Amino acid sequence: MRTQLFAADAVARFLSDVLEAEGIPCSDARVVGDLMVEADLLGGDGHGLFRLPRYVSRLKAGGFNKNPSIRVERRDGAMALVDGDNAMGHLVMKHCAKLATEIAREQGVAWVGAHHSNHAGAAGVYAMMPLTEDMIGLYVAVGNANHMAPWGGTKLLLSTNPIAVAIPGESGAILLDMATTNVAYGKVKLAAQRGEQMPEGWMIDGEGRPLTDPHQAASGSLLPIGGAKGYGLSLIFGLLAGTLNGAAFGSSVIDFNADDKSVTNTGQFIVAINIRHFCDPIWFKKSVEAVRAEMKASPTRPGFDEIRLPGERALATRERRLQEGVPVTPAMLAELDRIARDAGVAPMSERVTSA
Amino acid sequence: MRTQLFAADAVARFLSDVLEAEGIPCSDARVVGDLMVEADLLGGDGHGLFRLPRYVSRLKAGGFNKNPSIRVERRDGAMALVDGDNAMGHLVMKHCAKLATEIAREQGVAWVGAHHSNHAGAAGVYAMMPLTEDMIGLYVAVGNANHMAPWGGTKLLLSTNPIAVAIPGESGAILLDMATTNVAYGKVKLAAQRGEQMPEGWMIDGEGRPLTDPHQAASGSLLPIGGAKGYGLSLIFGLLAGTLNGAAFGSSVIDFNADDKSVTNTGQFIVAINIRHFCDPIWFKKSVEAVRAEMKASPTRPGFDEIRLPGERALATRERRLQEGVPVTPAMLAELDRIARDAGVAPMSERVTSA
Repeated sequence: MRTQLFAADAVARFLSDVLEAEGIPCSDARVVGDLMVEADLLGGDGHGLFRLPRYVSRLKAGGFNKNPSIRVERRDGAMALVDGDNAMGHLVMKHCAKLATEIAREQGVAWVGAHHSNHAGAAGVYAMMPLTEDMIGLYVAVGNANHMAPWGGTKLLLSTNPIAVAIPGESGAILLDMATTNVAYGKVKLAAQRGEQMPEGWMIDGEGRPLTDPHQAASGSLLPIGGAKGYGLSLIFGLLAGTLNGAAFGSSVIDFNADDKSVTNTGQFIVAINIRHFCDPIWFKKSVEAVRAEMKASPTRPGFDEIRLPGERALATRERRLQEGVPVTPAMLAELDRIARDAGVAPMSERVTSA
Repeated sequence: MRTQLFAADAVARFLSDVLEAEGIPCSDARVVGDLMVEADLLGGDGHGLFRLPRYVSRLKAGGFNKNPSIRVERRDGAMALVDGDNAMGHLVMKHCAKLATEIAREQGVAWVGAHHSNHAGAAGVYAMMPLTEDMIGLYVAVGNANHMAPWGGTKLLLSTNPIAVAIPGESGAILLDMATTNVAYGKVKLAAQRGEQMPEGWMIDGEGRPLTDPHQAASGSLLPIGGAKGYGLSLIFGLLAGTLNGAAFGSSVIDFNADDKSVTNTGQFIVAINIRHFCDPIWFKKSVEAVRAEMKASPTRPGFDEIRLPGERALATRERRLQEGVPVTPAMLAELDRIARDAGVAPMSERVTSA
């Protein structure tokens, strides 16, 4: 058995079939399936298909509202606050990105926050949404499990609180999508699965010593980028995406991987910046391209064969996977088939492969 | 000779006297003096008094517009773009912060960019401005000298591009003010002055090896926080604060420390978020306080005697220095007196000390 490639639309359809079988209305299931596969296309291996088992567990346990009424709770000028009504986060964030784009059309900029949302998958997917209208997109979320202590501390009160920013250029987007920790917790789990040790710099134990055994990870803390600076970013993002929106932050964050039932009250926000209010979008995209060219033309130092722009690898992966298909490992395929059997839908292994 | 303490208002007055003698109109000189000493109060040793010699050189060389007409070039909805007309950056940024606050009063959020601005001192000073009206402030700037290569490269195309975010809490602000590099270049210069070696992690040479001799710094690159992530943040901040505003970014950045004449076309932006549009500001500040208390209550790991929130040390320094005075080293005092003699104003050493 080896990793197989499946056509992206077959994967999306599989995801929506399972979600629909688990009680999500058809049109919502389609939306979530499309956004989940988008994460796989971008190479975000921990945010697409990989999350289906968790979502299904939470759906079965009643942890999501399957028939939510996502509503704009406050809207004034260039801001809005959205109540996600405990819907799947993908639905809430698509709603927010659409609203932010609408508001920024008139106002030049929009800031849309959400509470009572949920895990929404890959941050970059939402940051990319405003680009269809020559806007810049920015997305920040409170992560769904606390695996980091405040700088100098030992209590796990912070998450990887990621930021994604997408900026259009002539030849494509520049897409930053990063955790405020050196690595996301998914990489730790992957190391544990594979029986590998973690390199120093990923985590520390309660004494501040490097923690390299991923099986001890639950007792340790992820390390923030730049030490106190990454801690500061994570904290500020938590206050802006969580507290300001009336969403969970700090000890009130529900560990979404351990608890399928409690309402997570996840907080996120999306900013859209309408380029044409600042300058001619064509000029802007040319200028972004000039910056890209200048960076890429820098000589490299030993160990690097080229300079990459943020998102370069992800967006190239997307192009390739749209052509070649989305890779599914044998272990993942078995898990997806188990879920399909349970849901009474056609198994993934019988869907269209792209090879 | 030892470090002396001077009353903050005496320092501000000294600064404005010198600036006025060098041709800045009285009311503008007062504004810049007040904002420069604010950096010293916050403990930003590289951003207040320390910068006066450079500013004076640039004023003498004609690199600043002494009688600028700072104007709102575009304003629509929640955004504005300000043409700084090559004024001292402090004047441009105060203008932008005021405008952002005004816009956010109505719109809930405001994004104000600037071009043809200049070095404005401490980022945190501007992020703090909207807090007087129960708003959150965010400031991002393109740094005024490129000391960093793109990740994996050797050409110095990026600056420390800092971000500052200020969030009000019941007992005071949380104030993140950070470069996207592990250290600011000022620390490198300080190490060179003191004849000290730099620790690993600050800079690398063109081969990617740790660079520890600060006298070789010009040929090396600062290291971004979190490797490729900090590079990504610096790049994105440069595109948002520079390119989007029609300001310099990349190779068009003028090294403000080496060139006193060329127009820098510095870009910055300020975002103001009006808390009352999202929730009750009193509730918000209580909630921020609860987050602060929770972080501070975490047990510490070895080597730390307490958990600090971003800005905690800076804001405590401000309180102390308002009482005790701003420290001025003998070397700095001699330099300030030299500048004062040249400008024909009363020397710093004859001003009111606070001891």
